[in-house]
Amino acid sequence: MTAPMNRRYLLASRPEGRPKASDLRLDTQPIPEPAEGEVLLETLYLSLDPYMRGRMSAAKSYAAPVEIGAVMEGGTVSRVLRSRNPDFTEGEVVLSHSGWQSHALSDGRGLRRLDPAEAPVSTALGVLGMPGFTAWAGLLNIGRPRAGETVVVAAASGPVGSAVGQIARLQGARAVGIAGGAAKCAFIREELGFDAAIDHRAPDFPAQLAAACPEGVDVYFENVGGAVWDAVFPLFNEFARIPVCGLIAQYNSTGEFPGPDRLPVLMRQVLSRSLTIRGFIQREFAKQMPEFRQQMAGWIREGKVRYREDVVEGLEAAPEAFIGLLEGKNFGKLLVRVAPE
Amino acid sequence: MTAPMNRRYLLASRPEGRPKASDLRLDTQPIPEPAEGEVLLETLYLSLDPYMRGRMSAAKSYAAPVEIGAVMEGGTVSRVLRSRNPDFTEGEVVLSHSGWQSHALSDGRGLRRLDPAEAPVSTALGVLGMPGFTAWAGLLNIGRPRAGETVVVAAASGPVGSAVGQIARLQGARAVGIAGGAAKCAFIREELGFDAAIDHRAPDFPAQLAAACPEGVDVYFENVGGAVWDAVFPLFNEFARIPVCGLIAQYNSTGEFPGPDRLPVLMRQVLSRSLTIRGFIQREFAKQMPEFRQQMAGWIREGKVRYREDVVEGLEAAPEAFIGLLEGKNFGKLLVRVAPE
Repeated sequence: MTAPMNRRYLLASRPEGRPKASDLRLDTQPIPEPAEGEVLLETLYLSLDPYMRGRMSAAKSYAAPVEIGAVMEGGTVSRVLRSRNPDFTEGEVVLSHSGWQSHALSDGRGLRRLDPAEAPVSTALGVLGMPGFTAWAGLLNIGRPRAGETVVVAAASGPVGSAVGQIARLQGARAVGIAGGAAKCAFIREELGFDAAIDHRAPDFPAQLAAACPEGVDVYFENVGGAVWDAVFPLFNEFARIPVCGLIAQYNSTGEFPGPDRLPVLMRQVLSRSLTIRGFIQREFAKQMPEFRQQMAGWIREGKVRYREDVVEGLEAAPEAFIGLLEGKNFGKLLVRVAPE
Repeated sequence: MTAPMNRRYLLASRPEGRPKASDLRLDTQPIPEPAEGEVLLETLYLSLDPYMRGRMSAAKSYAAPVEIGAVMEGGTVSRVLRSRNPDFTEGEVVLSHSGWQSHALSDGRGLRRLDPAEAPVSTALGVLGMPGFTAWAGLLNIGRPRAGETVVVAAASGPVGSAVGQIARLQGARAVGIAGGAAKCAFIREELGFDAAIDHRAPDFPAQLAAACPEGVDVYFENVGGAVWDAVFPLFNEFARIPVCGLIAQYNSTGEFPGPDRLPVLMRQVLSRSLTIRGFIQREFAKQMPEFRQQMAGWIREGKVRYREDVVEGLEAAPEAFIGLLEGKNFGKLLVRVAPE
């Protein structure tokens, strides 16, 4: 019988355009021993998120790229298997950033203890974690929806979009969600309570969106770009706010984009409608994290915010699941169950 | 001897691209008689401003277009020739919006009395008027320069740009001005005290601008667009703020803009550098006007803010002067002296 090994995915090559499974390489190593002050973690859940596409590229972004041959980065929910750190006890579950691997060492910095009695631990990677906080912080600090205003968000069945729409409604705004396919649209309307849901695959998608926003768009939470942007753009009201947290539709694009050049048209609208376009990364608002957790946990307990997880089984499923994520194949927050809780 | 007439410029046709003198038609009418409650105004100065190009087009913008056959819109400094309104006395000088004409009636609404002892009355159209307020309100509300930051502004010898740079310096920021030609550059550096002045006509303009901003750009006050935007764009620091108050370089453009499409590249930078792009019209901040006037008048008295006027003589010079304004031919705030003070 062989000893259990640390299975891990290394970045094998930088993708050109759409990532291929071969851009990631499975590697096995002996499970490492924690030194004094360290803990050995076993990954329970690995979070798969669109931002990871950026880390695979060498292009300068808001964070350093993953080096070729290094373990792919990623947030995890992990269990303390062995502890030589007085702050952690074996068996505890923590939020970590162990990356795409089954085991990892940590000196304890950046770990956050999770209480399984408070909420399912997987939510620390979704509605109560980075995606939920991205929605909450971007919508409330930048979007600032007021009662009666119209808020539009795409990828609305995903972890960010679903929170954006539900939080918008809790502010008294109308929430219009965009998603791919009838099942997702039914979910955001019927389960999440959005005021309208539009399928971006419909041939008359721009007309449907305009019809769903009869008083224009006051907040567009941008997380996709591409054709959705083009459909929302003519609908902006004066003083509309556009928090930009992601552009998944263009993450796989390389080189120049063909014309016409839409920049002068954008700037003309920015000027004539006094638009605000504001990019952000959630860490900018890190000080608000405790307030977020308290408020969001309350909303979940009260049934005011719902969430959906899409869990794939086994670390080896991660590459294909991630490639599918970039194409909208997931339905809810995408997680890899690496080991049973 | 003929009686004096009201000379006025009517919008004769909507320009396609660059306006032609024939798009404006000189018309003469008998000088009207004020009714009870009205005043008859004589225009002393007519302000010429880039926004007027937008009013000549039918395209929806932040204000309604001037109708064909109507008097061209414009701010004026005017003298009360006859008054049948108890609030105004003959001989008083007022800020008005009489348009491109030598005389106008007013019911008194929107007029503001000017005190020639306080400041030259022409400044009510420039540094102490709409252009100065545009600079002050946009820079302080949206740009928010902090000490040590770098602020870039184009059209820097003009009424908005010159105020932006000088106010930026009063906040402790570095001011980098862009202007067309050696004389304007010398003026903004030597007379206005900008830290650097770059000639956008220089073949290596982008490299010169980059060299003048060794620590990047924190605030870009956008009033031109075009090639200046392209040169500033790579220099934005994280959290840079971009108040957008004008796009003079593209006002004469019609139809689609040729590729490549720069919008996805812009949005990628918005995201990766957490940029803020915010269009505005000064009237949004109208409540701050008294504070502005007091502060700006103080700065002028103390010699901390300087200004330059470019005065052309006679209403009949207005069309060519306006066409030249769109090409940067003016040097300072462009005014038409319609009648002697």
